[in-house]
Amino acid sequence: MLSHALLSATLALNAVRALLFDVFGTVVDWRGSLVREGRVLGARKGLQVDWAEFADAWRAGYRPAMERVRRGELPWMNIDQLHRLILDDILPRFGVHGLSETEIDELNRAWHRLRPWPDGVRGLKRLKSKFVISTLSNGNISLLTEMAKHASLPWDCILSAELFHCYKPDPGTYLGASALLGLQPEQALMVAAHEDDLAAARAQGLRTAFVRRPREFGRRSGYNLPRDGGFDLVADDFVHLAVQLGA
Amino acid sequence: MLSHALLSATLALNAVRALLFDVFGTVVDWRGSLVREGRVLGARKGLQVDWAEFADAWRAGYRPAMERVRRGELPWMNIDQLHRLILDDILPRFGVHGLSETEIDELNRAWHRLRPWPDGVRGLKRLKSKFVISTLSNGNISLLTEMAKHASLPWDCILSAELFHCYKPDPGTYLGASALLGLQPEQALMVAAHEDDLAAARAQGLRTAFVRRPREFGRRSGYNLPRDGGFDLVADDFVHLAVQLGA
Repeated sequence: MLSHALLSATLALNAVRALLFDVFGTVVDWRGSLVREGRVLGARKGLQVDWAEFADAWRAGYRPAMERVRRGELPWMNIDQLHRLILDDILPRFGVHGLSETEIDELNRAWHRLRPWPDGVRGLKRLKSKFVISTLSNGNISLLTEMAKHASLPWDCILSAELFHCYKPDPGTYLGASALLGLQPEQALMVAAHEDDLAAARAQGLRTAFVRRPREFGRRSGYNLPRDGGFDLVADDFVHLAVQLGA
Repeated sequence: MLSHALLSATLALNAVRALLFDVFGTVVDWRGSLVREGRVLGARKGLQVDWAEFADAWRAGYRPAMERVRRGELPWMNIDQLHRLILDDILPRFGVHGLSETEIDELNRAWHRLRPWPDGVRGLKRLKSKFVISTLSNGNISLLTEMAKHASLPWDCILSAELFHCYKPDPGTYLGASALLGLQPEQALMVAAHEDDLAAARAQGLRTAFVRRPREFGRRSGYNLPRDGGFDLVADDFVHLAVQLGA
């Protein structure tokens, strides 16, 4: 016999029609991908850089930059533009000089070529057989589109904070994405490896699935599994999520 | 030796990175699909309706309704809402009474289930191997997403006039779509079976490909191939377009 709590969760998820995915860290391994790209560039240009530290510094600049946009200190800028702003700042800090504009732009587009976690494509294909699967990322549309093409991510639809001119965790992103898919918030399930993203989605009425990505910040980073965050589902990867959703 | 005109066209198209597709009539056979859906409904409900005339009347209401939105006489409404407005008007005109709200809504969603022309999926797959392929339709995002899922249309990205709150042929749709893909207008090729759509795209600097769909309005409709409309390409179908683009 199903427990009352489990029964309630099952009934709640019965209404779900679409899955909205956070992308950086949840679908793709941004850190490993950036390290790989950095090493190739470094070898070609004879650069002595700790690319893991470089990747961490680049990512660390992302949230403060986005917050400046959210507070209105910066005009609307998409993630490509924010990534470039941060890159121009950290290149000299890591002693990288003499790259051409083309080379810097190419490095900035490493974010368009991030690689999925090993379960990513297989899990998404299973989930797609039962649900509409869409991105809901702060990454811009062209970044997400090129990433999907590069990594064979089988999205039904590419949605981005860029469409709403506000960044997650602003409510407009979650409500905007649900509305564009013709759904009530409770018919959409937000999938992410980050508690703050899910908490903000839940506050707008969306269902939530937490996916564990313990290596997002590298093998040696401390990783604390979230305490009970009140998520509808918790999964080890996308295949595990598909199993739980009967897909 | 290439003629000067052909060489210019080839050079112009060398810059193209993405193909933007009109959908109703260009990718899918809206008329044949609606007739099929209507007949199934008619048989089930015992309705005596000429479904080809019904489909034509439904489609005929579309442009005037959209023009009312464009002129500001109606607030922003997406195509699902406009289709429903027209449907509520034509059902009694065709003597259809007694459908439940669920049945009317289901009929309205026939537009989400339109079927592609026979060359559609095969041609798109070839074009996708070389270019980003995206919709640029007046149809809303959820309509286009469900249609793609239903008909296995392999879009890289789903873009819609709905994102810009203006309808083609407003310039904001063509420029907005190019910008979201990170492209200059001349790096985008608009593909459509309708001259007015292409003329408006060209006026904003996009490249243009006219695809012949002589049966869009039925086998017995008169179909006039456009005179030289100054399109960059003219194709018999999507496979022919792929051949011309080397995809």
